[in-house]
Amino acid sequence: MQPFLSFSPEVAAARAAGKPVVALESTIISHGMPYPQNVQTAREVEQIIRDGGAVPATIAVIGGKICVGLTDEQLELLGQSPEAMKVSRRDLAYVLSQNKLGATTVAATMICAQLAGIPVFVTGGIGGVHRGAETSFDISADLQELAQTNVAVVCAGVKSILDIGLTLEYLETKGVPVVSVGQPGFPAFFTRESGFNADFQLDTPAEQAAFIQTKWRLGLQGGVVVSNPVPAADAMPKEEIDAITVQALQEAAQNGVTGKKVTPFLLARIKTLTQGRSLATNIALVKNNARVGAALARAMVEYPTA
Amino acid sequence: MQPFLSFSPEVAAARAAGKPVVALESTIISHGMPYPQNVQTAREVEQIIRDGGAVPATIAVIGGKICVGLTDEQLELLGQSPEAMKVSRRDLAYVLSQNKLGATTVAATMICAQLAGIPVFVTGGIGGVHRGAETSFDISADLQELAQTNVAVVCAGVKSILDIGLTLEYLETKGVPVVSVGQPGFPAFFTRESGFNADFQLDTPAEQAAFIQTKWRLGLQGGVVVSNPVPAADAMPKEEIDAITVQALQEAAQNGVTGKKVTPFLLARIKTLTQGRSLATNIALVKNNARVGAALARAMVEYPTA
Amino acid sequence: MQPFLSFSPEVAAARAAGKPVVALESTIISHGMPYPQNVQTAREVEQIIRDGGAVPATIAVIGGKICVGLTDEQLELLGQSPEAMKVSRRDLAYVLSQNKLGATTVAATMICAQLAGIPVFVTGGIGGVHRGAETSFDISADLQELAQTNVAVVCAGVKSILDIGLTLEYLETKGVPVVSVGQPGFPAFFTRESGFNADFQLDTPAEQAAFIQTKWRLGLQGGVVVSNPVPAADAMPKEEIDAITVQALQEAAQNGVTGKKVTPFLLARIKTLTQGRSLATNIALVKNNARVGAALARAMVEYPTA
Ligand SMILES: [Mn+2]
Ligand SMILES: [Mn+2]
Ligand SMILES: [Mn+2]
Repeated sequence: MQPFLSFSPEVAAARAAGKPVVALESTIISHGMPYPQNVQTAREVEQIIRDGGAVPATIAVIGGKICVGLTDEQLELLGQSPEAMKVSRRDLAYVLSQNKLGATTVAATMICAQLAGIPVFVTGGIGGVHRGAETSFDISADLQELAQTNVAVVCAGVKSILDIGLTLEYLETKGVPVVSVGQPGFPAFFTRESGFNADFQLDTPAEQAAFIQTKWRLGLQGGVVVSNPVPAADAMPKEEIDAITVQALQEAAQNGVTGKKVTPFLLARIKTLTQGRSLATNIALVKNNARVGAALARAMVEYPTA
Repeated sequence: MQPFLSFSPEVAAARAAGKPVVALESTIISHGMPYPQNVQTAREVEQIIRDGGAVPATIAVIGGKICVGLTDEQLELLGQSPEAMKVSRRDLAYVLSQNKLGATTVAATMICAQLAGIPVFVTGGIGGVHRGAETSFDISADLQELAQTNVAVVCAGVKSILDIGLTLEYLETKGVPVVSVGQPGFPAFFTRESGFNADFQLDTPAEQAAFIQTKWRLGLQGGVVVSNPVPAADAMPKEEIDAITVQALQEAAQNGVTGKKVTPFLLARIKTLTQGRSLATNIALVKNNARVGAALARAMVEYPTA
Repeated sequence: MQPFLSFSPEVAAARAAGKPVVALESTIISHGMPYPQNVQTAREVEQIIRDGGAVPATIAVIGGKICVGLTDEQLELLGQSPEAMKVSRRDLAYVLSQNKLGATTVAATMICAQLAGIPVFVTGGIGGVHRGAETSFDISADLQELAQTNVAVVCAGVKSILDIGLTLEYLETKGVPVVSVGQPGFPAFFTRESGFNADFQLDTPAEQAAFIQTKWRLGLQGGVVVSNPVPAADAMPKEEIDAITVQALQEAAQNGVTGKKVTPFLLARIKTLTQGRSLATNIALVKNNARVGAALARAMVEYPTA
C-alpha cells in the first residue's frame, strides 16, 4: 500500500467493508470559504454524503501524510490555519517531504483519491482555462489531471471566473468526457446554464456508473466531469453575477493579482459585491453535488464486475 | 481479452494466423462521403488491402461492441444511418454503454486498433489544429491520441481545412514523428505539397517498419504519422483548392457552424464548389494510402522480433 | 535490459557498484558551443562530476546504439562532425534505425537517462515556450518530456531566448515542479534573476532528494526542474544581455531562421555580440550545475529506500 496514505477509522472501515466512499477536497475549506462557514459547510457536506449511503473522505496533507478522512480537529486546523498551502500536483511531494500543512486542490485531490482507490469525488467547481489564456497560458492543472487520473468529478461546472468555452475545447482535445445531469446544458457554477452543452446527458446514477466503468474497462485513462447544475432556487441571476465577475476581474488586473492568488481574490470580491449571496449559492451547489456524488458512489459499487 | 471487442471471421482468422492486418476508420463512411460512394469506396479500399497481402479491419461501434472488421450489412448500416454518432476518445464509452451506433474518428480508431493489436491504420487525412486555434483552442483529439497510442497512421497529411504549420508544431512538441513517403515534403491532402517538410523521408516499407518498431521497443509511447502524397494524376490544382477552402471557411463562419459540425460542413461545401472533383481526389488518396498501409503492415509482421 | 543501450566501462562499473551517476546531454557539444571549447568543456564538466563523487554519463547516439558514457574519441567525433543530428523525442528511433550520428537534446537525454536508470541530469538551460508562441505554437518538446519522464534536470533556468513567464505557466499546468537552489528566484540562464519565483526553494541536496524521491514514490510521473543560478561572478549584466537577445531575435526573424535552427543561430549571434563573454558565462553555469548535480546524485543514492 501507498506509504503516504493515512485513513481515518470511518474511511478505513468503509474500505474494508467495500462500502461506497466519496472523496472531498480541502482548498474549499482553507481558501474557498471564510471561517467558520468553511468548517460548518464541510461537516454538513460530509453528513449529506452519509445520509446518501456513502462515506465521506475529506483529503488533506497533515504531518507528512495524505489524510483520507479528517477528524473534527483536523477540519478545524485546516479551516483556521493561515499557513495551509494550496496543493496542486506539483506541490504534493513538497508538502509531504517538508512536513507542511496542505489543502488539496481538485488536481491533488484526484491524485490522492486514485491512490486511495476512491473513484468518485465531489467539489464545487473545477479549474479550467482562465480568461485571457490565449496570451497568458494560464490553464489550471485540474484539466491536465482530468486527462490522466481515473476519478469522476461531480461539480457545478468550472469556476465562473474562467473561460468556459475554451475550457470545454481543451477537455475535448484531451478526450475528457463532460457529462451533464438533468439537462443537456453545461452549468456555469452560480447559474444553471453556460450557453454550452455537455457532451452527453446521463441522468441516473446507474447510467453514469455504466459510462464511467466502461471507460476505465476500455483502459481509457482519465477522469470524467459530472456536471450538476445548482438548484434553481439557489441560483444567482445571470446578469448580476456576470456583471460582478467582470468587475472583480478588472479589480484583480488593476491590483496586479496573479497566479494562485487570483481565484481566492475573485471569490472574495464576488462574495463582497453580492453581499454574501454568492457564498450561499456556493454552499448550496456543493451540497447538491454531494447528493449526486453519494448516489454515484453507490452505483459504482453496485455495478457488476465484468 | 478486451470484453468489448468483436472480431469478424476474416479478421479473427488473420489474427490467429499472424497475418498482417490494417485498421480502417468509419467516420469517412458515415460523415466523410455521401451514400453510396461511401460504402462502395469502403469496399474498394478493403479489396486493395487484400490485394496488397493484408486483411482489412474496418472499425465501428455496433450493438455495444467494438466491431473489428465489418460485414456487408454493417457497412451499409453505417453508410446509410443518419443517427451514426461521430465517436472520438471521449465518446467511446458513451456509445458502448448506451448501445448506440458509432463511427470511429482517427482518435477512436487508433484506440480500438491498439486494443485489437493492430499497429497500422489507413485513413484519408488526420485531424489537427484548426485555423484560428490561437484564440479558439480548437485542436483535434487526433493529435493527443497520436501522442499516446501506439498505432502508425497512413494518411495524405492533415485535412486541408486545418492549419498545417501549427499542426506540425503541436506534433513536434508532443514528440510525434512525421514521416513522409517518396518525397521530403509533407503533403496537403488534396495536393502533394504543403510548403512544410516532414521530419524524415522513409520510402520503403522495411525502413518504415524498422523505424516504428524501434520507437516502440524503446518504450516511446505514441503513434507515427506516415504521410503519403496523393498521386500526381489525382491531385487538385493548388490555387483552386486553396481558394475554395478559404471560401468554405468563410461560409462556415458566416453560418455559425462550430465544433464537430465544421469538418462535415466544409467537406460538403468543398465537394459542391469543386463539382465533385474533391470527392474523386479524396477517394484516390485513400486508395493510395491503402496500398502503402498494406505494404507497411506486411513489413511490420516480417520485422525480426528482437 | 534495453537492447539499444551501450554503457561505457566507467558507467557500467558505477552501475554495478550502485554509485551515483549523472547524465549529460550532447547537443551542447554538437550544436551549443564551437570546437574545441565544446569538447574541452565536456571533459571539464565530466571531471567536476567525478570530483563531486559521482560518475558522468554523457549520452549520444552512435552506431545504432544509445551510448551512455562516451570515450575521448566519441567526444571528439561529436564535437567535430557537422552531420551530427540534433535528436529530440521524435528523432530518437530515426537515428537508431538509420544508424546515424545523434546528439541528444534535453528531451532525448531525459528519455535515455530514464532507460539507463539515471535519475539526475545536468545541462545548461532547458527548452521552453518560445517568444511569440501564442501564435506560432513553438514550444519545446523538453517541457512535454518533463511532464512524463522521471529525471531531475539541473539547469540555470530556461534558455534566455525563450519566454520565461509562459514557460513557467506551461510547467504549472503540466504539474512539473520547479525548484530553486540558494534563492527563491527562478534564474534566467545568463543572469541570476528572471523576475519570477520558483515554486519552492530547496537548498540542500538532501532536501532536494527527499522531494524528488517522494514525488516518484507517490507515482507522480515526470521530471523536476532544479534551477541553479549562475555564480554572481560569472553572470552577465542584465541590461546588456537583454538588449543583445532582443537584437538577435530580430535578426533571426529578418533572416527567416525558424524551427530547430533558431536556437543555434541565436546562441551564435549572442556569442558574437557579447564578444565571447556569453560563451564564458555558459561554460561557467554548466560547471556550476555539475557541482549541484553531483551532490544531488549522491543524495539520491543515500536516500533511504522506504
Ligand atoms: Mn495558473
Ligand atoms: Mn474541436
Ligand atoms: Mn519548436
